Amino acid sequence: MKKYSSTICLLLILLAMNIIVTHGNPRKIKPNKPCKHLTVYYHDIIFSGNNAANATSAAATNPANVSATNFGMLVVFDDPITKDERLMSPPVARAQGFYFYDMKTRYNAWFAYTLVFNSTEHKGTINIMGADMMAETTRDLSVVGGTGDFFMARGIATFRTMEVEGAAYFRLQMDIKLYECY
Amino acid sequence: MKKYSSTICLLLILLAMNIIVTHGNPRKIKPNKPCKHLTVYYHDIIFSGNNAANATSAAATNPANVSATNFGMLVVFDDPITKDERLMSPPVARAQGFYFYDMKTRYNAWFAYTLVFNSTEHKGTINIMGADMMAETTRDLSVVGGTGDFFMARGIATFRTMEVEGAAYFRLQMDIKLYECY
Amino acid sequence: MKKYSSTICLLLILLAMNIIVTHGNPRKIKPNKPCKHLTVYYHDIIFSGNNAANATSAAATNPANVSATNFGMLVVFDDPITKDERLMSPPVARAQGFYFYDMKTRYNAWFAYTLVFNSTEHKGTINIMGADMMAETTRDLSVVGGTGDFFMARGIATFRTMEVEGAAYFRLQMDIKLYECY
Repeated sequence: MKKYSSTICLLLILLAMNIIVTHGNPRKIKPNKPCKHLTVYYHDIIFSGNNAANATSAAATNPANVSATNFGMLVVFDDPITKDERLMSPPVARAQGFYFYDMKTRYNAWFAYTLVFNSTEHKGTINIMGADMMAETTRDLSVVGGTGDFFMARGIATFRTMEVEGAAYFRLQMDIKLYECY
Repeated sequence: MKKYSSTICLLLILLAMNIIVTHGNPRKIKPNKPCKHLTVYYHDIIFSGNNAANATSAAATNPANVSATNFGMLVVFDDPITKDERLMSPPVARAQGFYFYDMKTRYNAWFAYTLVFNSTEHKGTINIMGADMMAETTRDLSVVGGTGDFFMARGIATFRTMEVEGAAYFRLQMDIKLYECY
Repeated sequence: MKKYSSTICLLLILLAMNIIVTHGNPRKIKPNKPCKHLTVYYHDIIFSGNNAANATSAAATNPANVSATNFGMLVVFDDPITKDERLMSPPVARAQGFYFYDMKTRYNAWFAYTLVFNSTEHKGTINIMGADMMAETTRDLSVVGGTGDFFMARGIATFRTMEVEGAAYFRLQMDIKLYECY
C-alpha cells in the first residue's frame, strides 16, 4: 500500500509537470470560449464639406488616381459606439483611429483604432488592428492590447457590415472576443 | 500516518493542477509588478517650413476643414528619446512613427510608433499603439510587441504631457511598463 | 521508507508549484524555436502615374519639404506575397497595409499591415507592425496578432531587402516566426 501510494503520487506529479512543460503554453485558449465578449456597433458619418456638425470622420487624404475604389484614401475617425444598432442610442464608447482603402479592384479597407470606454460600466481602452475585407460577410481583426478594465487584453474583433448609405454613412457590428483577460 | 501522507500528497497535487487548469492563464500579471520598467521622455519639434535642421517631425496631411482642432492632420516623426526631461540630453533611443489628431471638440491624438534602442544598454525595439487622450493627465497605450532585448514584450505605455510650446514643441513622459518579458 | 516517500513527494510538488509560480510565465518561448515559421517575399510596385494596371501601391501623401528622403510620404499597398523570390510566381497571400518614410538623413520606413492568406494551405491573417530600419541588413518587426489558421498568433517578422529598382519596384524577404500558436 505504501509503495502503491507513492507510485501514484509520483505519476500524478509527473503528469502535472508534464502539462506545464510540454504545452509551452498551458493557457487553455479556445475560439469558442472567450473570457470576455462584447457586441457593439460602430457608426461612421464622413465629412462631406458641409456636415461638420454631424460628421464623425474626415478624409485626411484624397484617393490616388490608380482606381475608382478610393485606393489610398485615409480617413480619421472619432466615431460613436452603441450597444444596439441605432445611431441615436447613447454611445457606450468612442472608436478613435483611422481606416484607409487599399484595393484597386473593389472597396477594401484596413483599420487601426482604439475603443475608448469611459462609463460606469467600463473604463479603459481596447486596441485593434487588421484588414477589413469588405467583400466578406464577416472578417476578423486582432485585438492587440488593452488598458484599464481591459488591461493587457488580446483577442479577435469580428466585423460585419450592417448598413451602407452611399458615401454618407455606414454601420459595422463589432463583435469583440477577448481570450486573454487579467 | 501512511494514509495521512498520501492524502496530503494528493490534495497538494490537485491544488497544483488546479492552479494551472482553472486560471487558464497561470502567469501572475499584476499592474503594479511590471517585469521591466523604463521612464523616458519624447521630444517633438514639428516642421514649420523653415526649421528643417531642427525639426523631428512633419505633417503629412493638412487638417480637414471640419474643426479648428487639427482633426485629420497626420504627423510622421523620428523623435529623440531621452532619459531625463532635457531636450538636449543625449538620446537613448529614437521614437519612429506617427500620430494624428482625431477630435472635433478639442485636441486629441492617436499614436502608433516604435521605440528604437541601439546603445550599449539596450538593443531592440518596443512597438506601441493607442489613443492619446490629451485632456487626461495620464493616459495608457498598449505595448503590443518587442524585438531584440525586448523580444516578444507586451505591456502598457503611460503618457504624461510635460510641456507644450504652442505648435513648435511638446514633450511627453512615456512610462513603459512591460508585463511579459522573455 | 514511508517518511522518505512522502518527503520526496512533497519536494516534487513544491518543485512543480515553484515552476509555475516563480516564472510568472511558464511558457517556454525561445528565439530559436518558433512554433510556426514562414518565409515569404513581398513585392511592391508603386504607382507612377501611368502604370495603374501593374501598380500594387500608391502614395497617399507627398513627402514633406523637410528633406530629400521622402520623409512624410505615406504609401498604401495591396502587394502580392510569393513563396519564392519571383514577382511572377503565383501569390500565396496579399500584404495589405501601409508604410511611410520617417527619417531626414536617409531612407527609413515604418510598416503596419496584414498578411491575408486565402488558399487551401492557409486561411487567415497575420498582423504586423514596426520600424523598417532600411540601413540594416535585417530588421525585426512585431507580429501582434493573427486570425483563422493564425488565431491569436504572436511573433517576429524579419525583413531583408532583396532588390530595389529605383522608385519603381522593391522586394523584401519576410521571415515570419511565430512563438505563440494555438
